[in-house]
Amino acid sequence: MALLNEDYLKLPENYLFTEIHRKVNIYKITRPGSKVIHLDAGDSNHLLQGEFVENFHKNLDLMASSQATKSTDIPERTKVLEQKILKTDYESNGIKLSVDDIFINDDPRNAAADVLELLSRDNIIGVFDPSYPAFIYNTVMSGRSGQKMEDGRWSNLVYLPCNAENKFVPSIPKERLDVVYLSLPNNPTGTTLTTEELTKWVKYAIDTHTLIIYDASHAHYVRQKKVPKSIYEIKGAQKVAIELRSFSKTTGYTGTNFGFTIIPSDVVAYTEMGKAVSLNQLCRRRQTSKFSGIPYLALSAAESLYTPEGQKQMRQIADYYMTNAKIIKDKLLSIGLTVAGGDNSPYIWVKTPDGVSSWRFFEQMLYEKSIVCTPGVGFCPGGEGYVRFSGFSDRADVEEAMSRL
Amino acid sequence: MALLNEDYLKLPENYLFTEIHRKVNIYKITRPGSKVIHLDAGDSNHLLQGEFVENFHKNLDLMASSQATKSTDIPERTKVLEQKILKTDYESNGIKLSVDDIFINDDPRNAAADVLELLSRDNIIGVFDPSYPAFIYNTVMSGRSGQKMEDGRWSNLVYLPCNAENKFVPSIPKERLDVVYLSLPNNPTGTTLTTEELTKWVKYAIDTHTLIIYDASHAHYVRQKKVPKSIYEIKGAQKVAIELRSFSKTTGYTGTNFGFTIIPSDVVAYTEMGKAVSLNQLCRRRQTSKFSGIPYLALSAAESLYTPEGQKQMRQIADYYMTNAKIIKDKLLSIGLTVAGGDNSPYIWVKTPDGVSSWRFFEQMLYEKSIVCTPGVGFCPGGEGYVRFSGFSDRADVEEAMSRL
Repeated sequence: MALLNEDYLKLPENYLFTEIHRKVNIYKITRPGSKVIHLDAGDSNHLLQGEFVENFHKNLDLMASSQATKSTDIPERTKVLEQKILKTDYESNGIKLSVDDIFINDDPRNAAADVLELLSRDNIIGVFDPSYPAFIYNTVMSGRSGQKMEDGRWSNLVYLPCNAENKFVPSIPKERLDVVYLSLPNNPTGTTLTTEELTKWVKYAIDTHTLIIYDASHAHYVRQKKVPKSIYEIKGAQKVAIELRSFSKTTGYTGTNFGFTIIPSDVVAYTEMGKAVSLNQLCRRRQTSKFSGIPYLALSAAESLYTPEGQKQMRQIADYYMTNAKIIKDKLLSIGLTVAGGDNSPYIWVKTPDGVSSWRFFEQMLYEKSIVCTPGVGFCPGGEGYVRFSGFSDRADVEEAMSRL
Repeated sequence: MALLNEDYLKLPENYLFTEIHRKVNIYKITRPGSKVIHLDAGDSNHLLQGEFVENFHKNLDLMASSQATKSTDIPERTKVLEQKILKTDYESNGIKLSVDDIFINDDPRNAAADVLELLSRDNIIGVFDPSYPAFIYNTVMSGRSGQKMEDGRWSNLVYLPCNAENKFVPSIPKERLDVVYLSLPNNPTGTTLTTEELTKWVKYAIDTHTLIIYDASHAHYVRQKKVPKSIYEIKGAQKVAIELRSFSKTTGYTGTNFGFTIIPSDVVAYTEMGKAVSLNQLCRRRQTSKFSGIPYLALSAAESLYTPEGQKQMRQIADYYMTNAKIIKDKLLSIGLTVAGGDNSPYIWVKTPDGVSSWRFFEQMLYEKSIVCTPGVGFCPGGEGYVRFSGFSDRADVEEAMSRL
């Protein structure tokens, strides 16, 4: 008799963004003709142009001619790409990593779950409250979350409040923690930690053998100097931290995603007998058994990003979204709302006025202004009373939406 | 202190195909100038031509113009594609499925592991011996395999011998079984079950509430009439079977893969309290939380497959590989070897002469004939004394390799 994974039964019926989609559809059906503006997106939808697109076409023809092969061409070009990534994103920033430390992937959303797979189900995991919901759901589906409690939190997770009361600087907890997700800039709050604050986390991780899973998906949006783009800017981090990067946030090419995970060779986890094992080696074993390699066209797109022209366009796109974020932030401040984020991230985290709930404010924005934002409580219980506005949109739409407020 | 998933430590150092690659590299270094012919491939490397490639270019330009969007365009086109798949691959064959039964994926290799995720770790899993190694490794990494025994088998798996002694027709086991992988045509043996034989498995599954995971990745190669292409040709199978399909076997476009999983709404697994739960609904929850959708270009390629021209080219490619298989099989028979497969699959399963081991015969073929085949023992202990030859190669290479024997 086939038995099911009962952890799956704990999942909510709908994922946050599925639920938003459903509500927006109802609105559109009941109010035909109204122009809905989406300020809830979490991905770039601007494709790089010029030689980027030409290179895509060229590689497509190469693939069609069967000159591109999975067994030789992809592995060799992947190695070259990895070297370029290290040089561009890390060495230029004074960080020395080896090409063996990097794992290219084609689905950054899954990369965080893949890292969890390498770890025991008995770890106590810490997450920012609020944080990206997929991080939480991954712990649920893989049997690491414990039970859902009355307040909507999970019994086995340690929640690290990240809100106006602590100026969005989560404190290091006093209870046991084995693994901690640090998402910086944080999604959804758009807030960051300074080098000084992040240094405390690295010291804590070294002292307690805690593993840091550092989600740097939004690193390209960091503008302020005292805010690190990579955790490896902090001394000692190469002993305790895994870093995740994604290009869906800067160069969205509609699902032809790529990203990478850095696992320096010194990062370890422990057997129950206390033996340290390299997570890099474990991940390598996983990849050879489970990963078919990055699709050829995603690889070719990634290569184009690491040309001078690609880097230039990527910066332009990031600047475009950051200007959108500034327009949103300025407007919301001017009408008296309390906001965070937006300085090193395209996300603006907004306190709802008069203490109304996240979903209530979401519905007000939708039904009164035809604007879609994201209810903060959807990210975590600690997001209640907030909504997220996103700069991932077209300028004209952002301006029109702001003129409605 | 971060604890690791100790199940990962049970994996062998190298995946089968990584190990072959390593040995071939050593050969190439020590024997420079020799022309090595690969008859070990498991994927097509022939891209469809003509309108297929044109459509790829067209969709690329659509994507670059930002007219293709992840949130609207992909879901809508996916629905249309799903309807076409059901019509082309199932309705034409008298099988009635609903569009809600199908889950498109972009990595068929992972699809089998994704299904396992929905199931309890306490299930006893049956596998053909030999079978595709990723099936076994997925059970190891997810903590379902138990311990590796002296003979190389895993203590919690039930091995179903599939060899010359039982004419490659595995018997239904007498011991408890909760989940069984039926890979038909089987990879690596290239053998199949008739409708009559498969009917016995479906009846067994219904009687015992066993879940069948039917890997039909090679269904497009089935040529004989009494051999089913889909398990749903068998009455009752929609109550107990999940079917996996992959297009990496027919229309390899170098990693831009797509495939799909069929989970009819009646297929259930049970809670420990004996309550039946729809696996379709569980999978839907998983997808909304974990799957970002099929990449736009993979979707556009898949659409081209389901045009009359795409179907025609796909048949031509399959015929090409099947002719390769026939050339290999005829030659091996003519020199007195005992072979199976090759009639409904591009794989030929060859008994090594004089009882030499799989790896020894592999090395003989490599060092004496510069031909790469796949050692049968790499698939499972029951593959010892066999090697696999694959028709996934160029005609000229197949002919040259056979002339060397």
